[in-house]
Amino acid sequence: RIDSARLWDSLMQMAQIGPGVAGGNNRQTLTDADAEGRALFKLWCEEAGLSLGVDRMGTMFATRAGEDPDALPVYVGSHLDTQPTGGKYDGVLGVLAGLELVRTLNDLGIRTRHPIVVTNWTNEEGARFAPAMLASGVFAGVLDLDYAYSRKDQEGLTFGDELKRIGWVGEEEVGARKMHAYFEYHIEQGPILEAEGKTIGVVTHCQGLWWLEFTLTGREAHTGSTPMDMRVNAGLAMARIFEMVQEVAMAAQPGAVGGIGQVKFSPNSRNVLPGSVVFTVDIRSPDQPKLDGMRAEIEKRAAAICADLGVGCAVEAVGHFDPVTFDPVLVGRVRSAAERLGLEHRDIISGAGHDACWAAKVAPATMIMCPCVGGLSHNEAEEISPEWAAAGADVLLHAVLETAEV
Amino acid sequence: RIDSARLWDSLMQMAQIGPGVAGGNNRQTLTDADAEGRALFKLWCEEAGLSLGVDRMGTMFATRAGEDPDALPVYVGSHLDTQPTGGKYDGVLGVLAGLELVRTLNDLGIRTRHPIVVTNWTNEEGARFAPAMLASGVFAGVLDLDYAYSRKDQEGLTFGDELKRIGWVGEEEVGARKMHAYFEYHIEQGPILEAEGKTIGVVTHCQGLWWLEFTLTGREAHTGSTPMDMRVNAGLAMARIFEMVQEVAMAAQPGAVGGIGQVKFSPNSRNVLPGSVVFTVDIRSPDQPKLDGMRAEIEKRAAAICADLGVGCAVEAVGHFDPVTFDPVLVGRVRSAAERLGLEHRDIISGAGHDACWAAKVAPATMIMCPCVGGLSHNEAEEISPEWAAAGADVLLHAVLETAEV
Ligand SMILES: NC(=O)NCCC(=O)O
Ligand SMILES: NC(=O)NCCC(=O)O
Repeated sequence: RIDSARLWDSLMQMAQIGPGVAGGNNRQTLTDADAEGRALFKLWCEEAGLSLGVDRMGTMFATRAGEDPDALPVYVGSHLDTQPTGGKYDGVLGVLAGLELVRTLNDLGIRTRHPIVVTNWTNEEGARFAPAMLASGVFAGVLDLDYAYSRKDQEGLTFGDELKRIGWVGEEEVGARKMHAYFEYHIEQGPILEAEGKTIGVVTHCQGLWWLEFTLTGREAHTGSTPMDMRVNAGLAMARIFEMVQEVAMAAQPGAVGGIGQVKFSPNSRNVLPGSVVFTVDIRSPDQPKLDGMRAEIEKRAAAICADLGVGCAVEAVGHFDPVTFDPVLVGRVRSAAERLGLEHRDIISGAGHDACWAAKVAPATMIMCPCVGGLSHNEAEEISPEWAAAGADVLLHAVLETAEV
Repeated sequence: RIDSARLWDSLMQMAQIGPGVAGGNNRQTLTDADAEGRALFKLWCEEAGLSLGVDRMGTMFATRAGEDPDALPVYVGSHLDTQPTGGKYDGVLGVLAGLELVRTLNDLGIRTRHPIVVTNWTNEEGARFAPAMLASGVFAGVLDLDYAYSRKDQEGLTFGDELKRIGWVGEEEVGARKMHAYFEYHIEQGPILEAEGKTIGVVTHCQGLWWLEFTLTGREAHTGSTPMDMRVNAGLAMARIFEMVQEVAMAAQPGAVGGIGQVKFSPNSRNVLPGSVVFTVDIRSPDQPKLDGMRAEIEKRAAAICADLGVGCAVEAVGHFDPVTFDPVLVGRVRSAAERLGLEHRDIISGAGHDACWAAKVAPATMIMCPCVGGLSHNEAEEISPEWAAAGADVLLHAVLETAEV
């Protein structure tokens, strides 16, 4: 078993970096706070005797050598970046549980045949630079490095320039590493485990996603002196699209979600009807035809809503992954580790996207989940218990040891 | 008649300051560009032999002395500040036509019994600091100086600090001046005059306004892993309120408008349901009971929409003025000046608010309007012709001369 107190202590130390405004964290990718978090993780890796490699996306790979020079490494990891008003555990738990696993093996003097690599993927959240899981997407060959470097934040700064600015452009070609297996431990970010009193989620699938960025073009005009029948009202079109997305998502129940988190009005002045409204629709389902069907319906109905109001409508897909089925052998090892440890568990589908979804394209991969209070995540109030954190880390230890071969 | 070419030339020179991104202007109040615009206007006033007074709200009063030391001045003016993506004429025309009127009197050696004061009111637009017509509101005693100074822009900077920063805190007590009459010449900002082929709008009334700032409180949560039935969706509540405001405004036709120009999602991240959504509803009508009825209905229905979704709903009135009836004597002088000059005219109700609405509280006041292309304003593409500009300035000249007494 891992050292529960040491794991919790590391989580609390990392949470000191990039504090939020309400007890959580704002350690968005490629900010100064991200650089500080990386430096602390690097120090801890060195203290644990790991050797650090960094690829051109800034992803950090900390290796504990194996006994067989020909054996491919087993990867464990997640991400240290957070949402602008994020929690202390989303991503961080997976990275620091990987580190704790290695510390535990060091303490016990356990050697493995396969090396073990603790990984911190760059820009998992996608909050600052869409899409999410950007570095693992490039690693898996699904996204281009040039595309990734050119992604812009809301201030117009690019991913490439910001990665250079914080000093984390590594030497390694992205995706050159080969993996024996990939494990990611993460908080559920949803309400199911807690509601059912389960300590461990055995993650069998991850739902797929589309991020559809709508740019609606209206006519900028005075709110007071422009008659109702002369308006080209992009704000009203947006409102109707919001309601329609809700309808489409509700009609797709169960097994689908849809919502909107980001909106930008221009010029965003109280007495000016907006010239443009940009927002991103987020739709997800573990069922591929359902997911693609929702996308098609939303685009069709949005076009009709806009046409009706004379509003221009352009749609760009700024994020996408297909539903994922995780490797049955690794899933089985997670399930039997939970059994062996006497932990209440259930199979679960991940509602959120994770780097494991891209890793699954290039290696056998799976995930382990622990509950979070009230299912709350992407919220500074995100909370877990030290016992939950430790339980999943123990399952991770057992499943990784079985895979890395003692 | 005024010098049409000189007026147009001054308009074009002022438009060089605080250029926009699409041929218009971004000379928002209390910015460096505003300071530059003020400096140019000051220079022109000095060249025309006017003496400049500035009040504690930064409003500029440039006086051409009258012959009777006991006669109160006739004020003409408007504002030099613009929307973030504003036009070259909204406000500017009224100030520079006032200046042109004085230049014309100088050229012709015409003296008046009453002094004439060309006025540039601070923060008419209300784009950076709500409400609009802030300085004239304080002048009229409707708003407090402390309230005005404490108004914040989106960066949290206050009006008071920014006025000091650009160096335009004057000595004069706000509202100490007494007016014999107030005239404001402005572009229509609506489509009526152009559509009917009229060159002059004789402004008899101005519609009243409410700006209702809604703060909706939802629960920040992950867009992917939060089931539809667990969402406290402030974005959806906002969408329903938008649609409801549209319905209320349509039901109040004719003689009312309603719309939304400003929206802020927090944290505004693609995969986070918003914790808060703030937006401002703008409703107007020349009919007081109708205007107040719309407000009551919107607040009632918004509360019900939010209650239905479990979303918190707070409303603050951040801008208001009652419908205004302009002084019949001055209105008559504008109408007969247009007649005398052989200009096509019609009576019109101002759709937008103007400093004249507050001036009307403390003095006989009225307005003159010229058409604008396509009724477009609060848009960088705002356009008028030099002939339109000159026609209204001629009417202003005649009506002011009759009032200031030659
Ligand atoms: N786990 C997580 O929040 N990832 C961000 C990508 C997503 O929105 O699912
Ligand atoms: N004229 C003008 O655009 N004034 C700003 C105040 C308003 O929104 O009516």
